[in-house]
Amino acid sequence: MSDSYSITETTRVKRLAKRGAYDRDTVHAILDEAMVCHVALVVDGRPRVLPTLHWRMGERLFIHGNSKNGLFQAIRQGAEASVAVTLIDGWVLARSAFHHSVNYRSVMVVGRFEEITDPDELFVAYEAMMDKMHPGRWDQVRWPNEVELKQTSVMAMDLVEVSAKTRSGPPGDEPEDYDLPVWAGVVPLKLVRGEPIPDPTPHP
Amino acid sequence: MSDSYSITETTRVKRLAKRGAYDRDTVHAILDEAMVCHVALVVDGRPRVLPTLHWRMGERLFIHGNSKNGLFQAIRQGAEASVAVTLIDGWVLARSAFHHSVNYRSVMVVGRFEEITDPDELFVAYEAMMDKMHPGRWDQVRWPNEVELKQTSVMAMDLVEVSAKTRSGPPGDEPEDYDLPVWAGVVPLKLVRGEPIPDPTPHP
Repeated sequence: MSDSYSITETTRVKRLAKRGAYDRDTVHAILDEAMVCHVALVVDGRPRVLPTLHWRMGERLFIHGNSKNGLFQAIRQGAEASVAVTLIDGWVLARSAFHHSVNYRSVMVVGRFEEITDPDELFVAYEAMMDKMHPGRWDQVRWPNEVELKQTSVMAMDLVEVSAKTRSGPPGDEPEDYDLPVWAGVVPLKLVRGEPIPDPTPHP
Repeated sequence: MSDSYSITETTRVKRLAKRGAYDRDTVHAILDEAMVCHVALVVDGRPRVLPTLHWRMGERLFIHGNSKNGLFQAIRQGAEASVAVTLIDGWVLARSAFHHSVNYRSVMVVGRFEEITDPDELFVAYEAMMDKMHPGRWDQVRWPNEVELKQTSVMAMDLVEVSAKTRSGPPGDEPEDYDLPVWAGVVPLKLVRGEPIPDPTPHP
């Protein structure tokens, strides 16, 4: 298998092409760090977007959702989806308004999801999802029963049409602006975990 | 003006309706805290999604982008857009796999963007954008010149078809699961600003 995804007309990064990346390692790292993706769909000719948790196993991107959710039904019916995953790493403060920016790492995946129906495959997928939330969690909790399994669908999309786009580093100002008496640099942003809050709910 | 947005068939939260909210204060707070929105569009019949910075002034949502960006051109041409803004507040770890969840605050806005062309309005919009990145920034930096203004388009959408959806608090397990010897609760997640990194670039 090649180290990179093939570039197609759909996935080629056109604006600021130097920020584009197609190697699997970069794409995988972004997908694995981000918790939420945004799935765009066309439903009745109109644009719709579903924010939802995602996870990755090998060359497949997984999402899950309530089988009855309207947008999820379109996904189950094989509608084409455009999936964006976006991590924000910092504000980029330049000397000129124009060159202000953000540092980010993003991935775009285009394709169609297929439903996971094999029970063994389904449990492996759930284990991977739970371990992304909290490593080892799957082995600690009560597993889904048949009723619960029926309420949720797990969908997977092969990572075929994929691209990443990233920006990092300091601002790029115009040469004549470097003398301006303006602080310039990057304000890093990071999603951090806080102190866990135990469930205060008394046993019902 | 009413404290809440009118609920339409497009904006009504259907799944888990109790998580839906339509009041302006909730919507504004989410839009103001989040840095990035995902704009879904239909282009040539296919779903597309653009992650981009946004900001709000009163009852209008703003985005900006390079005038030549392909998706941005569709936005400028008045294509219908579905805009999602998603904040993640924590992992919700339940005693059962099924009841694991995330705490989140999200907003969905549906409509069409209009381009800001009035120069005064444009500068007010840029000031608001820069102040969101860093309060007071607009008064410190070099303002855009004519060439720079031409390269970028600022677009605004009236907040009319809008809904919020949120989850907060501890997990909701099945009554019979509360006795299980499994830690349950919330792991808070928060986007924090790190120590600013001054631009190390020497004067060119």
